[in-house]
Amino acid sequence: MADQEKNRISVEIYGHSYKMVGTESTGHMRLVASIVDDKMREIRVHNPSLDSSKLAVLTAVNTVHELLKLKEQVEELEEELKKLKG
Amino acid sequence: MADQEKNRISVEIYGHSYKMVGTESTGHMRLVASIVDDKMREIRVHNPSLDSSKLAVLTAVNTVHELLKLKEQVEELEEELKKLKG
Repeated sequence: MADQEKNRISVEIYGHSYKMVGTESTGHMRLVASIVDDKMREIRVHNPSLDSSKLAVLTAVNTVHELLKLKEQVEELEEELKKLKG
Repeated sequence: MADQEKNRISVEIYGHSYKMVGTESTGHMRLVASIVDDKMREIRVHNPSLDSSKLAVLTAVNTVHELLKLKEQVEELEEELKKLKG
């Protein structure tokens, strides 16, 4: 990745500015930031007393849960493909 | 999900206690919590000056990025399966 050009943008998540740096497109980085912002606001609706740090931790918790479920799905699909290719 | 029994546990993430409630197994919930804890500590190594709130937001950002990549992979695998099944 060292010789790939890096994109740098500033995004706003839950009222705070963050600098994002990466080889992904700025569009992808903005999408990720807006998803995190949305998720934090959604969790706040159900937990209005939580401070922003705990809200962010619960956002990470929910996302890791989704990630594990999706990893299971990838494994199942790969298994099915393997059988079909036989 | 209303008639499914819910599990309730207390987990520790980055030095704070969180109550988790869900229909998932307590093992799954503990795994999710430990992944978030690990990710926060890993991000702190590279960003020692960040406060815990920003660390948690960056953890959520990284996880959402992984989630989007995995969703692309699921779509590709489903497309491949569809072609093979004709």
